[in-house]
Amino acid sequence: MANQYVFRFGNGRTEGSREMKVLLGGKGANLAEMSAIGLPVPPGFTVTTEACRYYSKHGHQWPTGLAEQVADGLAHVEEALGRKLGDPAKPLLVSVRSGAAQSMPGMMDTVLNLGLNDEVVAGIAAETGNTRFAFDAFRRFIDMFGNVVMGVSHDLFEHALEHMKQRKGVRDDIDLDADDLMALVAEYKAIYEDHTAHAFPTDPQQQLRHAINAVFGSWDSTRAIKYRKINRITGLLGTAVNVQAMVYGNMGDTSGTGVCFTRNPSTGKRELYGEYLVNAQGEDVVAGIRTPKPISEMANEFPAQHAELVAQTTQLEEHYQNMQDIEFTIQKGKLYILQTRNGKRTGRAALKTAVDMVQEELTDKVKAVRDLVEPGHLDQLLHPGFKDEAGYKDQVLATGLPASPGAAVGQVVFTADEAEAWRDAGKQVILVRMETSPEDVGGMDAAEGILTSRGGMTSHAAVVARGWGKPCVAGCGAVVIDYKAKLFTVGGTTVCEGDWISINGSSGEVILGRQELAPAQMSDDFSTFMQWADEIRPIGVRANADTPQDAAKALSFGAEGIGLCRTEHMFFEGDRILAVREMILAASEKARTAALAKLLPYQREDFAGIFRAMPGLPITIRLLDPPLHEFLPHDTEGQEEMARVMGVPVSTVQAKVAELEEFNPMLGHRGCRLGVTYPEITAMQAQAILEAAVEVQAEGIKVLPEIMVPLIGTVEEYVDQRDHIRAMAERVFADKGNRVDYLIGTMIEVPRAALTAQDVAAEAEFFSFGTNDLTQMCFGYSRDDAGKFLPIYVERKILADDPFQVLDRQGVGQLVRLGTENGRKANPQLKVGICGEHGGEPSSVAFCYQVGMDYVSCSPFRVPIARLAAAQAHLAVQ
Amino acid sequence: MANQYVFRFGNGRTEGSREMKVLLGGKGANLAEMSAIGLPVPPGFTVTTEACRYYSKHGHQWPTGLAEQVADGLAHVEEALGRKLGDPAKPLLVSVRSGAAQSMPGMMDTVLNLGLNDEVVAGIAAETGNTRFAFDAFRRFIDMFGNVVMGVSHDLFEHALEHMKQRKGVRDDIDLDADDLMALVAEYKAIYEDHTAHAFPTDPQQQLRHAINAVFGSWDSTRAIKYRKINRITGLLGTAVNVQAMVYGNMGDTSGTGVCFTRNPSTGKRELYGEYLVNAQGEDVVAGIRTPKPISEMANEFPAQHAELVAQTTQLEEHYQNMQDIEFTIQKGKLYILQTRNGKRTGRAALKTAVDMVQEELTDKVKAVRDLVEPGHLDQLLHPGFKDEAGYKDQVLATGLPASPGAAVGQVVFTADEAEAWRDAGKQVILVRMETSPEDVGGMDAAEGILTSRGGMTSHAAVVARGWGKPCVAGCGAVVIDYKAKLFTVGGTTVCEGDWISINGSSGEVILGRQELAPAQMSDDFSTFMQWADEIRPIGVRANADTPQDAAKALSFGAEGIGLCRTEHMFFEGDRILAVREMILAASEKARTAALAKLLPYQREDFAGIFRAMPGLPITIRLLDPPLHEFLPHDTEGQEEMARVMGVPVSTVQAKVAELEEFNPMLGHRGCRLGVTYPEITAMQAQAILEAAVEVQAEGIKVLPEIMVPLIGTVEEYVDQRDHIRAMAERVFADKGNRVDYLIGTMIEVPRAALTAQDVAAEAEFFSFGTNDLTQMCFGYSRDDAGKFLPIYVERKILADDPFQVLDRQGVGQLVRLGTENGRKANPQLKVGICGEHGGEPSSVAFCYQVGMDYVSCSPFRVPIARLAAAQAHLAVQ
Repeated sequence: MANQYVFRFGNGRTEGSREMKVLLGGKGANLAEMSAIGLPVPPGFTVTTEACRYYSKHGHQWPTGLAEQVADGLAHVEEALGRKLGDPAKPLLVSVRSGAAQSMPGMMDTVLNLGLNDEVVAGIAAETGNTRFAFDAFRRFIDMFGNVVMGVSHDLFEHALEHMKQRKGVRDDIDLDADDLMALVAEYKAIYEDHTAHAFPTDPQQQLRHAINAVFGSWDSTRAIKYRKINRITGLLGTAVNVQAMVYGNMGDTSGTGVCFTRNPSTGKRELYGEYLVNAQGEDVVAGIRTPKPISEMANEFPAQHAELVAQTTQLEEHYQNMQDIEFTIQKGKLYILQTRNGKRTGRAALKTAVDMVQEELTDKVKAVRDLVEPGHLDQLLHPGFKDEAGYKDQVLATGLPASPGAAVGQVVFTADEAEAWRDAGKQVILVRMETSPEDVGGMDAAEGILTSRGGMTSHAAVVARGWGKPCVAGCGAVVIDYKAKLFTVGGTTVCEGDWISINGSSGEVILGRQELAPAQMSDDFSTFMQWADEIRPIGVRANADTPQDAAKALSFGAEGIGLCRTEHMFFEGDRILAVREMILAASEKARTAALAKLLPYQREDFAGIFRAMPGLPITIRLLDPPLHEFLPHDTEGQEEMARVMGVPVSTVQAKVAELEEFNPMLGHRGCRLGVTYPEITAMQAQAILEAAVEVQAEGIKVLPEIMVPLIGTVEEYVDQRDHIRAMAERVFADKGNRVDYLIGTMIEVPRAALTAQDVAAEAEFFSFGTNDLTQMCFGYSRDDAGKFLPIYVERKILADDPFQVLDRQGVGQLVRLGTENGRKANPQLKVGICGEHGGEPSSVAFCYQVGMDYVSCSPFRVPIARLAAAQAHLAVQ
Repeated sequence: MANQYVFRFGNGRTEGSREMKVLLGGKGANLAEMSAIGLPVPPGFTVTTEACRYYSKHGHQWPTGLAEQVADGLAHVEEALGRKLGDPAKPLLVSVRSGAAQSMPGMMDTVLNLGLNDEVVAGIAAETGNTRFAFDAFRRFIDMFGNVVMGVSHDLFEHALEHMKQRKGVRDDIDLDADDLMALVAEYKAIYEDHTAHAFPTDPQQQLRHAINAVFGSWDSTRAIKYRKINRITGLLGTAVNVQAMVYGNMGDTSGTGVCFTRNPSTGKRELYGEYLVNAQGEDVVAGIRTPKPISEMANEFPAQHAELVAQTTQLEEHYQNMQDIEFTIQKGKLYILQTRNGKRTGRAALKTAVDMVQEELTDKVKAVRDLVEPGHLDQLLHPGFKDEAGYKDQVLATGLPASPGAAVGQVVFTADEAEAWRDAGKQVILVRMETSPEDVGGMDAAEGILTSRGGMTSHAAVVARGWGKPCVAGCGAVVIDYKAKLFTVGGTTVCEGDWISINGSSGEVILGRQELAPAQMSDDFSTFMQWADEIRPIGVRANADTPQDAAKALSFGAEGIGLCRTEHMFFEGDRILAVREMILAASEKARTAALAKLLPYQREDFAGIFRAMPGLPITIRLLDPPLHEFLPHDTEGQEEMARVMGVPVSTVQAKVAELEEFNPMLGHRGCRLGVTYPEITAMQAQAILEAAVEVQAEGIKVLPEIMVPLIGTVEEYVDQRDHIRAMAERVFADKGNRVDYLIGTMIEVPRAALTAQDVAAEAEFFSFGTNDLTQMCFGYSRDDAGKFLPIYVERKILADDPFQVLDRQGVGQLVRLGTENGRKANPQLKVGICGEHGGEPSSVAFCYQVGMDYVSCSPFRVPIARLAAAQAHLAVQ
């Protein structure tokens, strides 16, 4: 006996269900499900993915039995509606749609109105009394069939349509009359014949066979293969084909069409929310030519159908345990449900829906965490937005990268010093720079938001701004800055110092003038929901924070420790930079040690503050990482100033700047390479950390410092640094007459460290994957320079995503997995985490969970996102 | 029964052989071997590595039976010589030496004269009639035993000795008399007691036990463990201990000592070559206080012993099938052979010895290739040296990196333009620069040699010079250049433009004045020997060559194709740079294409020339790799000149320079990233290559172009570029009405490309590992900047070798192996090679062979080295 290749649905004869996605595709399974729970779905049938596979593997032959089963399927539809395909008296029209187990834009999509020919169109005109309707449907069918099935360019048909409208002197399609459309049908047929060398097929059975084959064939199209390859979709059988009766909402005043949500998608309030149009098709609602009515009015206009809709949508929400977005059509008084899917919603609505649905016992906590809130929803709640998100679109000056979410408004300033001065004078400012550097942090802090014309998502401005939750638009190349004239231009528009602008760090938009802000919306629902997520979440979430203030903020967002405390940021504050520069200029180890001694008390106080801000939680402190030249001024003015302050000739400063200059600073004398060549720096930092720890512990606060060696590539570097740290620890403990527990571990951010993880882990107590640098070195991309080609790569699908935003599982991820697994082999106690930007990106968090990390760490404002993403990653494999 | 832990040798009772290295260590196996073939080796015994292992694993206990077996071994020695350990009447003294299966500097080495105490020393004085001799031996014994066995600092003893010499007002040890030495022995004992808290052991049996235990214990010393770890020595059991009777060449005029070679180590001539001293110890020959006599004089002075020595050394050479370096001692007329090893020799001697020994039927071709010539020997032959290698040492001004071997002499110039001008005026010049850039190649070519004050072994100067076989000393930091004054200084010495200097690129030395050159010494032996190597060698050797001239040179050195032809070097020649700059300044794709069209005929002619120079051999051509800013002038003068020549404002040039500036050019917009963003560059280069190929093929010359896409990190980049190349190929073939065979493949130089090799290989026809860049990215080292820490890393053993010179097997090698294996999985036909600097480094060539590469490629002058190294790598696993 032949396999079952055709599954019917509708009219009480449903053979599939939502569990059968692999065989029926997502769309087919969903239609079957709706039909199975008794909803009025237009009848139809699904040809299985197995049939597609057979077709693909056997030289475009149908498997034995498929032709008969398709005929049976069609008979089922015909019987359900009392109509027949190709029968002019009672014609049946069908839609043919592809639908694989995963959505796949590379494939053929939809053919509507299949079954039309010259006789049938006349029959429909007669039956509906609407010739215009009939020929409009026929025109659309020839266009879609010609384009989608036969590859005739849609532009050719569109061109004929435009030409007709010009001839008739009308603007909209709707203004063409029946005669015009009849003429167009003739033209369309001629276009079809011209470009296919065949007459348009008049046999509806043949139309159907062609359409099914076209869907099958689109599975093996270059586009679809490329799409699957890029998105690494494997293991699917093929696409299913859904053949379904057409229903029409434009058959007069007892017909109509609409869309509705089971809850308000803006607020989450439980109410049927949506709109409908009488005597219209779905596309009319979208086209916006007529103004739809709110769904509540249906209660008056279509009372029976409204009651039915309320009952059915309630049933759908209960069934899917999620807020639904439903499309329906009323054809001559009969309600059909065409589609249901989980409704898109705002962050606020998502949280309210989740908490409400649990309280209404429509779902449970676990499902609410798994399905009802997306990590991105939380971002909306944590940052201010604009009151009128839709209203400002015509004032957008330029769009850059959405580098740090949230909205900000202020007056333009061009230097960090001015930002501070204006702030001190009580003004709100937006700092506009080509790029920022560590010297600018004061001004960045003073500004409401930051706009840069260069640099990417992981540029200095972006990283610092995200850490602070401060809105930032980065790499906005359209903004041309003239520092001297204190202005920037975008095309013909000039914006001067003091002018007001607004920036949207969530979208990258730069807006002229002052937009009104809407504050962040942290609600009770937020904490209720996050607690549920935490109950499920199996891995830790820490924050990257460099100061006691950041640590406190991170704690308030639910961080369970610090995964990355960068010590170099501390080097810029106040007078410390002088001591740092003195150290750099030092000609001998002795002079260097003397300069370091001046830094010691500052660093100790920094660390003590952080320990106090996060009592009892682990604090991972990274030793000095950036190359020393980052601490020197690179402009003549700054060098002269430095020479003056330090009492040395400016030539001395310049000679040192020249000496430290590097061709590729990213791959230069930095990280542990500094610590290995100048062990006194490591010694000072270890001393500051451990003295602070002993001191804070003496106050009765539990401390757990984790000292992290950056940028190792060989176990020998790690051992060298570890031995210095241990020696210092023993000295400090002896001095202070007290000990603290502490760990020593290392960043894994150099490919070679990941490749030799087994050796390194035998000596280290923890690993923290620094996936920013690991991505730079694994791909060979400087994140500061990749702006020249990365956007083109993403646009042209050479890369699926910017690897600095979404962890590249195939390459970088391979190193992370290898490093973790081999590390644990050598040291089963090894603690493993991530502290790159990816630690707050949901799909990357899921990967970290899959790899078996102990925790992820991200900027404080992303901590809630990571908490939810981690819980969802766990539920995804349950 | 107990294991055999002691193997005796000498006096006809030899129990070991050279095959027993694992158990007896290298030294023990060698002593056994010499003894077994009947040579007069002082009798002794070897304690096995198994005994050491037992000692190490069982809390420093000796295994059952060892004590008895050591006693038996000692008895064997005593019986052989009719002497007894500790017997004042007929005392036996022994040496105790460590010796593992691999030589290991981290371990205890040697104790001589063991067996001395107050009674025995008196006995020896009486027996020899030489009190001074006896007490000198005792003094040395206390020093060695104290230092090596008990860890007393040698400096303490040395200090006492110095003090004694001062007191006596003498300069040399030899000037101290017997009384002085007796007094010193007393002092030495006191020092020993002071620092060990024990009296010096008087029982010779106890001395022996201590010494054996010290050797055992040194296996587990921190130094030895660290040495094994760094050098990745694993799987050894422990060290063996060799106890051997002492013999003395200083027992009067019938005694003596000497060293000899079985062939002349400078020329390779077959003759007993060496020297000896009457009434002396081995160390006296080394100390150089007395002038030794040539070995030929022994025929008169010690005729019997000379005849014996000739017979025995001949026997040793035949036995070891290699030229031997032999130490011997005559004690009171009796000849002892103390040691034999393969003799060190010059390149010339190595080749002559190899060819002669095959012709003399003392060995065969395979063994000659395996054992008789080292790859480094060939280097000496291929480059000129100085006539008087020893004579110039006091004129050495400074020493830099030996960046490209060979010697050169010339007048100092400081710019590339001057180098060309002076050369054109008939002068010989040495180009002295801080560093070189592609703009300097004309002047580099004009110079006899190149000296740079910055940059490493893989700096521009070094790479280009090695490619040309031109001597280069790089990174000579002591040289301080003042371009304006046209001079450089080294310490107090000033060298002006026009002054003569000599440089030795093999040693890194810079010498003031004109040294006389000795030309390269390619002999008939060379070609004979290289042919034998080629018969054995299983993998191909190609050259990296960019011009027809280089290709011809490479062919003459035996290259079997080109593994890397860099197209960008061609961009600098003559007027081409103008077209390149025009392309860079172009504002549109159209203008860019127009500029590229000007380059096309040049490139086509370049490629045609190379195809003609290497008929029938594969030529791998890499598409444009460096970032575009490398083609623009970076100094104001150059920018003004460029603006003038191109007829654009200088601000246009400067704006483009600024636009193209990168933070980390190494990781920036280069390689295939250029080709992906500017496909017209790829198209032009593909057109030039394929048009040249069709043209040369039409001349009846077989061509095999291999087009190589650089710097890919994703298969999508490769496919993008491949499709452009293929499309162009079809266009060219259609245009020309003819086709050529060609391959398209890619460099594997980005870690991610190696990690995803399976995907890439499914699309590519060949891989060429670019291990320079792969090393940079795997380690995160910029080779231009690593000079600040890499030398320190190598010195401090954080790295065993500079990874840019010797391929890092553990990290980079892991990527190479993975890439090759996974690539071949996806594409069994995949051709795999290497084109980094490592392709000419012997141990790296061996690794490439082990990994299963099809070929290695290196600079022309290293081709012979690679040919030999590849043959030896193959023989090493036979």
